[in-house]
Amino acid sequence: MSVVIVGSVAYDGVETPHGRVERMLGGACTYIALASSYFAKTQIVAVVGDDFASEDEKLLTDHGIDLKGLERVPGKTFYWAGVYSHDMNDRTTLRTDLNVFADFKPKLPESYRQSPYLILGNIQPALQRDVRNQMNGLRLAGGDTMNYWIKDYRVELLQTIRDWDFLLINDAEARMLSGEYNLKRAAAKIFEMGPHTLVIKRGEYGAILFRKDWHFIVPGYLLEEVFDPTGAGDCFAGGFIGYLAEQGFDLKNGHIHGKDLSRAVIYGSAMGSFCCEKFGVERFRTLTRAEIDARFQEFRAFTEF
Amino acid sequence: MSVVIVGSVAYDGVETPHGRVERMLGGACTYIALASSYFAKTQIVAVVGDDFASEDEKLLTDHGIDLKGLERVPGKTFYWAGVYSHDMNDRTTLRTDLNVFADFKPKLPESYRQSPYLILGNIQPALQRDVRNQMNGLRLAGGDTMNYWIKDYRVELLQTIRDWDFLLINDAEARMLSGEYNLKRAAAKIFEMGPHTLVIKRGEYGAILFRKDWHFIVPGYLLEEVFDPTGAGDCFAGGFIGYLAEQGFDLKNGHIHGKDLSRAVIYGSAMGSFCCEKFGVERFRTLTRAEIDARFQEFRAFTEF
Repeated sequence: MSVVIVGSVAYDGVETPHGRVERMLGGACTYIALASSYFAKTQIVAVVGDDFASEDEKLLTDHGIDLKGLERVPGKTFYWAGVYSHDMNDRTTLRTDLNVFADFKPKLPESYRQSPYLILGNIQPALQRDVRNQMNGLRLAGGDTMNYWIKDYRVELLQTIRDWDFLLINDAEARMLSGEYNLKRAAAKIFEMGPHTLVIKRGEYGAILFRKDWHFIVPGYLLEEVFDPTGAGDCFAGGFIGYLAEQGFDLKNGHIHGKDLSRAVIYGSAMGSFCCEKFGVERFRTLTRAEIDARFQEFRAFTEF
Repeated sequence: MSVVIVGSVAYDGVETPHGRVERMLGGACTYIALASSYFAKTQIVAVVGDDFASEDEKLLTDHGIDLKGLERVPGKTFYWAGVYSHDMNDRTTLRTDLNVFADFKPKLPESYRQSPYLILGNIQPALQRDVRNQMNGLRLAGGDTMNYWIKDYRVELLQTIRDWDFLLINDAEARMLSGEYNLKRAAAKIFEMGPHTLVIKRGEYGAILFRKDWHFIVPGYLLEEVFDPTGAGDCFAGGFIGYLAEQGFDLKNGHIHGKDLSRAVIYGSAMGSFCCEKFGVERFRTLTRAEIDARFQEFRAFTEF
């Protein structure tokens, strides 16, 4: 079944201890979509400028991603540049040029509106709500947000996530949103805001999926070398929603077992780990589903006891 | 089978966001021994002053801990005081009065020397080596160390761990000892130093057990409330060695399966999590083996997929 993804398609400049790339394909929507495309029909809603390169478009279409909702407008594509610390646990933003993204008003093609799965990348909460309201027959909707919206757009954000099934954020965001340092308590507070499922990304330490009565924790995959962590959290999101869509799970009507959600977290973790193995989206040029399934089994091997 | 534990028995002053205790039983040897005592016959080697209270001795003997190796000398018992940060991820030492511990020369009672399991708490590497050499018929020996010995006693430390089966340290120590930030590479370097098994404690994020050809990772147990993390790493060590001793495992002669080591890591993690639930050693006044086994099952429930 198909997944609709809304968010940024961008160009990134990235510097890590392993090298530097001035300009390469990036953006949350791009990463989520590439990851999701290994599991399910993937439809994106985003905006790019007239500088958007045909080889970048080709990478997306080569993955079978539906670009009907990719709007092209005069001007430049969103550009972000950042540099990572030596241990890659911190990054500093060097530049954020919103460009055509500044006026992004997501428009859903008619053919997207019946898709059962929706994931909203980190954009203005009011836009996220607007997209959510354009969809019919959703089985599962959720998304990401960030400190900026949590702090300065709290009312809008709370109105938006009230209708979400799942919220997928990192530990610092969960603490900021809930006002609770302890993650179990943070989850309990967030459930009162609407979502019945909370996924907390913990970077190199893995992820936790909370539901009201249970939780699942997976440690991070140990890489020999992390080349570039940009997009890893978004690839997690793509693997998570993609697997649920592939299996046709329906959280809303209870047609899902905890184990299925746990496996979605594992596929998310696997996709995040692949993302770090090369710069930007490079790893997705060669990645195969067989490699993904092999990594899923690796997760089993190093966590089972 | 029996475990010999060498290290500090101390009085601690601890302040966390949940409260403050001026003086309570503590020390690495105390925590390791209490945790180990739930699994195996536990024999300690340590020194206390003439201020060591009979009720503290009683807590140890009530757990069946053999105190033949607990030396009593005139003077005061080792005293440590520290305060934790609000999130409890950092702590500041306020006072370290070595007192009688300054002249600690571990003396093994004759009845300890044939014990098959030995765990050396974080003390001077030369003393650790001396104890190791007093034992006959060891099946499994290993221990802990810290930044101070790694930096200023490196040669002695390397001579000491050369004869160990396992090294049980935290991630920062593993990085410092190996000179590698990446934990997989750090493990590979540490194997060249002698130990065939490396256990890396990651605090709230759990633990990793490395062997040459595989590794096992467990996330940390999510507590609703962390009262006092003092001693959690030592309780991990006690649960780890205690379980291996209970099962009679023999790493040296290959009579151990990876799954058994993984389970020892789970029991270690369980003991560390209990330790945090109350101040100091308080939790061990009521803790039962049934509660420990139930927590082991909880680890399975939140990690299985």
